[in-house]
Amino acid sequence: MADGICRIIPLGGLGEVGKNMTALEADGSILVVDAGLAFPRDEHLGVDLVLPDFSYLRDRREQIRAVVLTHGHEDHVGALPYLLREVGAPEVWATRLTLGLVKSKLDEHGLLRNAELREADPQGEPVQLGPFRLEFVRMAHSIPDCVAISIETPGGRIVITGDYKVDHTPIDGQKTDVGRLAELGNRGVDLLLGDSTNAERPGVTPSERVVGEAFRQIIPQRRGRILISSFASNVHRMQQAIDVAVLVRRKVCVVGRSMRKNLNIARNLGYIDVPEGTLIKPVELDDYRPDQVLVLSTGSQGEPLSALTRIAYNDHPAVSVERGDTVIISAKPIPGNELRVHDAINRLAKSGAEVLHQENAAVHVSGHGNAEELRTILSLLRPRAVMPVHGEFRMLAAHAQLAREAGVPADSIVLAENGSVVELSARGVRIVDQVEAGVTFVDGLGVGDVQDVALRDRRHLSEDGVLIIVATLAGSNGAATAAPEVIARGFGEGTEVLDELRGEADRVLRECLAGGVSEIKLLQEHLHDGVGQLVYDRTRRRPMILPVVVEV
Amino acid sequence: MADGICRIIPLGGLGEVGKNMTALEADGSILVVDAGLAFPRDEHLGVDLVLPDFSYLRDRREQIRAVVLTHGHEDHVGALPYLLREVGAPEVWATRLTLGLVKSKLDEHGLLRNAELREADPQGEPVQLGPFRLEFVRMAHSIPDCVAISIETPGGRIVITGDYKVDHTPIDGQKTDVGRLAELGNRGVDLLLGDSTNAERPGVTPSERVVGEAFRQIIPQRRGRILISSFASNVHRMQQAIDVAVLVRRKVCVVGRSMRKNLNIARNLGYIDVPEGTLIKPVELDDYRPDQVLVLSTGSQGEPLSALTRIAYNDHPAVSVERGDTVIISAKPIPGNELRVHDAINRLAKSGAEVLHQENAAVHVSGHGNAEELRTILSLLRPRAVMPVHGEFRMLAAHAQLAREAGVPADSIVLAENGSVVELSARGVRIVDQVEAGVTFVDGLGVGDVQDVALRDRRHLSEDGVLIIVATLAGSNGAATAAPEVIARGFGEGTEVLDELRGEADRVLRECLAGGVSEIKLLQEHLHDGVGQLVYDRTRRRPMILPVVVEV
Repeated sequence: MADGICRIIPLGGLGEVGKNMTALEADGSILVVDAGLAFPRDEHLGVDLVLPDFSYLRDRREQIRAVVLTHGHEDHVGALPYLLREVGAPEVWATRLTLGLVKSKLDEHGLLRNAELREADPQGEPVQLGPFRLEFVRMAHSIPDCVAISIETPGGRIVITGDYKVDHTPIDGQKTDVGRLAELGNRGVDLLLGDSTNAERPGVTPSERVVGEAFRQIIPQRRGRILISSFASNVHRMQQAIDVAVLVRRKVCVVGRSMRKNLNIARNLGYIDVPEGTLIKPVELDDYRPDQVLVLSTGSQGEPLSALTRIAYNDHPAVSVERGDTVIISAKPIPGNELRVHDAINRLAKSGAEVLHQENAAVHVSGHGNAEELRTILSLLRPRAVMPVHGEFRMLAAHAQLAREAGVPADSIVLAENGSVVELSARGVRIVDQVEAGVTFVDGLGVGDVQDVALRDRRHLSEDGVLIIVATLAGSNGAATAAPEVIARGFGEGTEVLDELRGEADRVLRECLAGGVSEIKLLQEHLHDGVGQLVYDRTRRRPMILPVVVEV
Repeated sequence: MADGICRIIPLGGLGEVGKNMTALEADGSILVVDAGLAFPRDEHLGVDLVLPDFSYLRDRREQIRAVVLTHGHEDHVGALPYLLREVGAPEVWATRLTLGLVKSKLDEHGLLRNAELREADPQGEPVQLGPFRLEFVRMAHSIPDCVAISIETPGGRIVITGDYKVDHTPIDGQKTDVGRLAELGNRGVDLLLGDSTNAERPGVTPSERVVGEAFRQIIPQRRGRILISSFASNVHRMQQAIDVAVLVRRKVCVVGRSMRKNLNIARNLGYIDVPEGTLIKPVELDDYRPDQVLVLSTGSQGEPLSALTRIAYNDHPAVSVERGDTVIISAKPIPGNELRVHDAINRLAKSGAEVLHQENAAVHVSGHGNAEELRTILSLLRPRAVMPVHGEFRMLAAHAQLAREAGVPADSIVLAENGSVVELSARGVRIVDQVEAGVTFVDGLGVGDVQDVALRDRRHLSEDGVLIIVATLAGSNGAATAAPEVIARGFGEGTEVLDELRGEADRVLRECLAGGVSEIKLLQEHLHDGVGQLVYDRTRRRPMILPVVVEV
C-alpha cells in the first residue's frame, strides 16, 4: 500500500469546458497531465485564446518532470506551446498520433527543440517518471489514439480517464480497453479523475459508426455537390466520409487549413486510409461535375473566417453551393456558437442547398460517454475515491451523484475547483489548500498582458462608445485657450447633443477656473462628471468619458 | 370571387425570429397585423431593443386604418408603443387579454389616448375595416387568448395564423378552433401566412398539460423551497404551478416585476384562477418554512438583472436557495442565451439546489406547432397559395416544403423577405417589388439614432480598445508646443509600449512639420497611420486610433 502523499492540483477544466490541465506533485516532482486551451466567451472582448494560469507551475519549474497528454484535442494540448515557452518541461509524453499533431504545433511556434517528445505506448511497459509510474490505457473518443493514464504515486494509484466514450464499435477498432480497466480495478484504484462532460445525459452515446450509416444512406441518393463539415481533428468522421465517397466514386476535396494539415499527419502516420487518386485539390474542383465530388471542410462551429462560413457567404475562392447541393454539418454547436451556426445554415439554405445537421438528421454523435458509460467505468475501476473533472459545475455534480450511486462514500467524492490542492494518501482524499488558478488571455502577440481591467474597459466602450473632451490651458496664466473639443465614437448621437456637450464642457471649465480650480486632475474630474451627467440626462446612455486637459 | 388586388408587405419576422409585423394594403387602406420587437444580438453592442423599420408606414400614415394584434407576446406587440408614437394608427384591435397587456404597456409609455383600443371577439361578428373584413379564430399557444385572423380583401381571402400549436388539451380549454379553420377552408382560402418556427421539427409538440404532469410528479416529493422560472407571459404555466402549489399546500410568491404585472392583469381579467390566501409577498417569505412555499420567478433566459439571475448570484433581497431546494427552469434558452442560462444553472447547482431544466426533465414544451401540426393546418385550410412567415430562412424553407407536399403548386409558394411586396389577386400571388425594411435600434432614450456606423465603432472599440493621441500646435508659428500625449483604454499594453508609441507620435509630428505639413487633417492622418503601424508590429492588435491635434 501507498505510504506517502500525492497532491493533485487541477489548474483548469473544472467548473468550465476547456483548458484542461492537472498537476500531480509527489516527493518534490511534478507531472503535468494535459495542457489545454479554451476559446474566449463573448465577454472576453477581442481575446483570441484563453490559457490556464501557469503561476503555480512557474514557481516550481525546476520540479516539473514531464507533461503527459491524453489526446490531441485543443482543450487538452492547445496550451502546450505556451507552457513550454513560459515555464518549460524536459519531456512531453503522448501516443503516436497525438505526438504527430503536437510536433506540427510546436514546429509552428519554433519550439521543437524545447522538450524531448516521447511516445506513450498503450501496449508497452510502464514508464517510470520520478516517483510516478505510468501505464497508458486505450480509450475511444472523437479523435484516434486517446488514452487514460494510470499513475502509481506515493499517495496511491490514480486513474485519469481523459476524454472518452465506451464505443464498442469504433471505426478504427481501437475500443475503450475495458479489460485493462477491469484489471486496474482488480489491482485497486485509490482515486479516479473522470470525464464529466455528458454526466447529465441518460443512457449511452451512440457509436461513431452511426454517423457512417447516416452518410451511407444520405450520400448515394444525391445528385449535386456534397459538402461535409466537421471538426478538423475528427479523423474517424473524415474516414467514414471518404469511405462512402470511394463507394459512390466521388473525388474528395479537403478545404480548410487545419483539416488539410490534420489529414496529412493522420495519413502519414497510418491513422486514415485514403486510396490513391481519391483526393483532388480545390483548384481541380472545376474539372468535375457536382455529382463527382465530396468536399470536406472546416467551419462546423460557424467560425468567422472558416471554410464553411466563407462558402455560406459565397466568399470562398474554390467552393460554392447551389440548388441541388447537400451540406452536412457533422458537429454540434459548442454553447455560445449557436447563432453563428444558425446563420451559416440559413445562408446555405438560401443558396438552395439542403442542409442536414444534428437537429434534423443523425449526422453527429458526441465523443463523450453518457451517464451509463460513466457508471460502466465506475464499475470496472471500483475506485475508493472519485474527483469529477472536465466540465461545468452541474456536470461535475451529476458525475458525483453517479459515483455516490455506485457506492463511493460521500466523503470520498471530491468536488474540487481549479486551484484546489487535493491530497491523496493512505488516509484517503481531501482538499487541503487552494492556489491561484485563474485565466491567462492571449490577444495578438501578448500572452497575459490583457487583464480584467482592459476587458472591463472594452466592455464599457462596446456598450455606448466613447466621448473624448479635449481642453487646453495656457501654462502661463492657467486660462483656457479655446473652447473644448468633443469627439465621439460609437456613441450615435447627432451634432445637436454634441454641441450641447461642448457647451457644458466649456461652462464647467470656466466655472472651475473662475473658482480657482486649476489642478489638471481635478479639472478632468469635473469635466467627466459634468458632461457624464448631461449625457445621461439627454440620452440615458453612459459612454466612456475621457477628459484630456493639456497645458500648453 | 375577388376582382381586385391586395398587397402584403412583411416588415419584420421573415429571415429572423422576432419583430413580426405585416402590412396589408388594398384600395388605399393599410391594415397592420402585429407590431413586434426583437431582442438585440451580441453584435448589436449596447442596443436595448430592435424594432422593425417603420419607413414604409411613415410615408403612408394617412392610409393606416388599424393595427390588429394576434396575441400579447413581445415579438408581436412590443413595438406598438413606438409605432403609435412615431407613425400613429387610429385603432388597435386585439382580444381581451392581449388588450389588457397592451393597455398597461401603452399606459407606461403615456400613450393610452393615442389610439382607440377595440376588442376582437373570436365568437363575434366579422369586423369591417375599410376594404378588409376580419374574422378572428381561436388558436392555442403559450399565452392565452391568441387568434388567427381571416381577412377578406379585394385580392382574395388571407389567413394569418399568428403563433400557434394544435394543442387538443390546453389548460384553459381554449383549443385551436379546427372547426372554424375547416369552415374557412371550405369557403376558400387564397393565401395562408403561417407560423414557421418549428417547421423543421418532426411530429407534434406535446400539450402544455405535459408540463403540469411533470410539476405534479416533481413538487409533492420535495421538502425544500421550490422555485419555478418561466416566461412572464406564460399564464398557463403559472396556472399549472399554482394548481400544484394549492394541492400540496404551499404558498405562492411571485418575484420579478413583469411576472407580477402579468399575473395581476390576467387575474383581473379572469384568465388565471388563484384561490384567496394563496399568494404571499416576497417580504413574507421569511415567515414560512422552505417546504411551505413555491416561488414563481422571471429570468428563465438568464437575463442579467432578472430575479432568477439575482437569486443564482445570491443577490436577491427576498429569495435565496440552498441545499435541498429545487429550481425548475420551465423554458428553453432562446438561441444566443445558452451560456447565460448555463451560468445560472451552475451557480444554482453550486448553492446545493437541484436544478431541473428542459435537458434533464419534461418541464417545458414549445408553444409552436411542429411539422405535423403545420400539415394539419394546411389540410384544414387547403390554401391556394402559401407564404411562410415567422422564422429564419431555413424554417421558412421547411414550411415551404411542407406546403409543396400538401399539394400547393410550387409557383404559389412565396418565399418572401422583409420588405417584399407580395401581390394577391385572382391571377394568384407573386412578388412585385421590394421596399426598405431594415431595423431600428432603441438605445437608451434614442429610437433609430444608433446606426450601423456607431455599432461598427463599438465593435472596433470592443476588440482592442482605443488609443488617443493628443498633440498641440502653437497657432502663431505652427510648431509643436510639447510632446504628444497617448491615452489608452481597453488596450492592455504596459507603459513600455505606450512610451514607444508616444515617441513615434512625436517623431511623426516633427517630421511632418519639418516637411512643411501643418494642415490638421493631414497631421492627424499621418499620426493615425504611423502609430497604427507601430502598434500592429509590436502587438498584432488594431485598437481604434484617434489623433487629436489642437491648435492653441
